[in-house]
Amino acid sequence: MFVARVQVTIKEEVLDPQGKAVEGALHSLGFEEASGVRIGKFLELTLNTDDRAVAEERLSQMCEKLLANPVIEDYEFELVEAGEAR
Amino acid sequence: MFVARVQVTIKEEVLDPQGKAVEGALHSLGFEEASGVRIGKFLELTLNTDDRAVAEERLSQMCEKLLANPVIEDYEFELVEAGEAR
Repeated sequence: MFVARVQVTIKEEVLDPQGKAVEGALHSLGFEEASGVRIGKFLELTLNTDDRAVAEERLSQMCEKLLANPVIEDYEFELVEAGEAR
Repeated sequence: MFVARVQVTIKEEVLDPQGKAVEGALHSLGFEEASGVRIGKFLELTLNTDDRAVAEERLSQMCEKLLANPVIEDYEFELVEAGEAR
């Protein structure tokens, strides 16, 4: 069993209006030092397999097919064996 | 200058219908080994300050006030000095 932690981020060359809106809100709240806000997704899931290579391969497929949109998003993930301290 | 990477996750005791929907979709696509899908947010931003303690304090305030909803969400972040290799 592996716990997967996946970060999905919008590619650098793609506009991020949600990030821009949050940046404006931060400035309105007095956090003038914040800039370059980009918003993505963070996913955690459990994979019921004991083979790390298989888990990585399958998780890549999940990202390509469903979890991320590879046209406008990048993804990276880490696999932690379930039960291990993080 | 620091680059902040913030992970916002739904607290364990709070239902995550979006995660449930994605889990169902993964199963439909043949990824039967996936379970316990939880979906959160991932934010990247730049902080224009050179004092790590100040950056941490201000970023905590940003999370409490805007980036996360502390009633139903947890957050964790890391600060990387801008220009450092990740």
